[in-house]
Amino acid sequence: METLKIGIAGLGTVGASTVRLVEAEPTHGGSGRHIEVVAVSARDRTRDRGISLDGRAWFDDPVALARSDVDVFVELIGGAEGPALAAVEAALRSGKAVVTANKALLAAHGMRLVALAEEKGVPLLYEAAVAGGIPAIRTVRDGLAGIPITSVLGILNGTCNYILTRMEQEGLSFEACLADAQRLGYAEADPTFDVDGFDTAHKLAILSSIAFTTELDAGAVAVEGIRGVEPADLAAAAELGFRIKLLGIATMTEEGVDQRVHPTMVPRGTALAETMGVTNAVSIRGPAFGELVLSGPGAGGDATASAVVSDLTDLARGLAPRPLGRPASSLLPFRKPQAGGHRGAFYVRLPIADRAGAFAALAARMAAEGISLEQIVQKTPHRPEHLPPLDEQTVVLVTYPTTEAALARALKAIHDDGVIVRAPHVIRIAETL
Amino acid sequence: METLKIGIAGLGTVGASTVRLVEAEPTHGGSGRHIEVVAVSARDRTRDRGISLDGRAWFDDPVALARSDVDVFVELIGGAEGPALAAVEAALRSGKAVVTANKALLAAHGMRLVALAEEKGVPLLYEAAVAGGIPAIRTVRDGLAGIPITSVLGILNGTCNYILTRMEQEGLSFEACLADAQRLGYAEADPTFDVDGFDTAHKLAILSSIAFTTELDAGAVAVEGIRGVEPADLAAAAELGFRIKLLGIATMTEEGVDQRVHPTMVPRGTALAETMGVTNAVSIRGPAFGELVLSGPGAGGDATASAVVSDLTDLARGLAPRPLGRPASSLLPFRKPQAGGHRGAFYVRLPIADRAGAFAALAARMAAEGISLEQIVQKTPHRPEHLPPLDEQTVVLVTYPTTEAALARALKAIHDDGVIVRAPHVIRIAETL
Repeated sequence: METLKIGIAGLGTVGASTVRLVEAEPTHGGSGRHIEVVAVSARDRTRDRGISLDGRAWFDDPVALARSDVDVFVELIGGAEGPALAAVEAALRSGKAVVTANKALLAAHGMRLVALAEEKGVPLLYEAAVAGGIPAIRTVRDGLAGIPITSVLGILNGTCNYILTRMEQEGLSFEACLADAQRLGYAEADPTFDVDGFDTAHKLAILSSIAFTTELDAGAVAVEGIRGVEPADLAAAAELGFRIKLLGIATMTEEGVDQRVHPTMVPRGTALAETMGVTNAVSIRGPAFGELVLSGPGAGGDATASAVVSDLTDLARGLAPRPLGRPASSLLPFRKPQAGGHRGAFYVRLPIADRAGAFAALAARMAAEGISLEQIVQKTPHRPEHLPPLDEQTVVLVTYPTTEAALARALKAIHDDGVIVRAPHVIRIAETL
Repeated sequence: METLKIGIAGLGTVGASTVRLVEAEPTHGGSGRHIEVVAVSARDRTRDRGISLDGRAWFDDPVALARSDVDVFVELIGGAEGPALAAVEAALRSGKAVVTANKALLAAHGMRLVALAEEKGVPLLYEAAVAGGIPAIRTVRDGLAGIPITSVLGILNGTCNYILTRMEQEGLSFEACLADAQRLGYAEADPTFDVDGFDTAHKLAILSSIAFTTELDAGAVAVEGIRGVEPADLAAAAELGFRIKLLGIATMTEEGVDQRVHPTMVPRGTALAETMGVTNAVSIRGPAFGELVLSGPGAGGDATASAVVSDLTDLARGLAPRPLGRPASSLLPFRKPQAGGHRGAFYVRLPIADRAGAFAALAARMAAEGISLEQIVQKTPHRPEHLPPLDEQTVVLVTYPTTEAALARALKAIHDDGVIVRAPHVIRIAETL
């Protein structure tokens, strides 16, 4: 059978690993069809990537590569716009199958690119875009196709999970762990995309679209990152029997699909709570199967390249799954539930002025909103010995289930009363996901 | 598009759930193709299964159903021989796609049935045969196709994991937990197939064949069940930081594929150790992706039916994966490594005569085989107060890595010395899987 000719644009760690994996077993999956990387494109031709460029056509311009004589265009450039978008569009328009690891691109232009791929009748595959080496896309797209799903949630960003793990295990600040992660190559020089939750939001929106068969809407994700998490929160979480994880959570509600990314208190002993370091985990829930959890490497050149290669193998085997499993025309329009309606228990850390009556005032405001308190812990914050004691105390509350809106009103009233000296920190508790 | 006509043989809990899931969303996966259960076969037509038989052809004989006017024959009868085998063969011979949940059938006749399906050019799919609602088959067959795998292991039998969980949490005996599991419907009246490890062995052999692209050989699995596990072992495991799980373990070695099923000491805090009750878990390891763990419901009508429906959806979508991902002719012959060569650390519980010198004799025999001891615990077994004290003590040893063969020689010598009063109990420790 004819060789499946691959062109790869972007030769970073994932691109180089993909070349190596394809070379190590060129008849991937026993398809009988030889897979070969015949053309590549990157910014710098001279850089040593540990792979040979001999016999592969070199393109300075990824768009030219996309239009060249390849069967599959593999996009590993990254970024939602610019050359990645231009090259993927060019490849689809010229009738080539596309494999991409680019979640930002899909989050921004997914519906349009899917429509283009369907119009041209070519596959657009992106297993590597979500949760690295975990086959999350094909599990939701194929393994659970036609099976009702009520929620998809997970730890989808290895950088954040690495930082939270180090903060918890070593009692370090967010800033110190971020600096370490940057030094070790787990975080970018500009960490915004990861630590502020946008990367998680992009991956969540992609999974959510397939799971709930709705149009993809990454703009509808409510996003909060991990910058506000303090060692005091992690210590309180441990005392209460939780771990703090940055979760992406998509839930099917009567009003539509609720998509959220935020730090979450997850009960210890559960698969998500025990997912440490750069490992990712995806939990899928539905009435027929209960809970399914996939955990594995969320990043890394070889792991992400494994996912790219699994898509290439599908193509070599002649399997051509639709981008979303089903025709894009069969998707339901995306509906977003009203904000503030999410019900659940909350952890609230309040720095209160250390004065008589402060606690009573706070409790009264909670009661006025009908919020019952399950646990109340009052603490004097730890201060290094060379600093003078603070004129404040920390109160940690755990509420019974209430709505975000009610809690927000109570906290605003508490703030207006002058009872708290800085903004409170609220973390959702996962029991009621 | 034409309706995909399904015939289901076997209307137990999985069969009835499959009918309900198909009816709940007949255009599964947005394939555009209507799925309908048009014919059924079971032993008793009058039994109330909570599903309507109206409008479905009834067959007393599953072979007649297999030869009737259906597109897909779904085999949920069970058993390695008899009507299940006859009906699956009849369906394949008459050119029909087959979906089955029958691991015993595949373990016994898999290679022959795969060859028949390939000869006839029809799909033979069996996601439901391994780990119930966990998409283990498609993850290994498609998600990791062409990616080197070094081991596949897991908790593949919910009955055993339920019994071990109850034994650990409540300090109960194997017999008491088995009786409870039978009362609750988690174990069969004849529990041999589950508790003696054969069910795990069948599932492991199927996974192993796909993972290592070798012919399936369930007869080559070394099998030990959980009957020998005593509360004392679970208590010792807890002290040592382990949980005891019945694992199926397939490892690629230089000599061939090592397939084993046995109780195993698994370090606490790992995903497998934290898999409790009837939940199953599958761990797949390889150099490119590290470790991937899938956990979810290993049994239950709805969960297993989800897996059946995922196969039906592939067919409705026009995807027809090969039974083993690759042509059976491309599989390597199965090679079994020499017995006793497995190296690892061992937990050994020895009931010794309570006499001077017994321990020294035992230690000498271990030393003579070059086995170093990492931990030694000597205990007086717990006896109910109304019974007289036993004239024996229990010694628990944890060895440093050694071979099965060396340990077996040492234990035989210890037995011949008359130092132990009953057979010792050996459990492998998972660090060196």
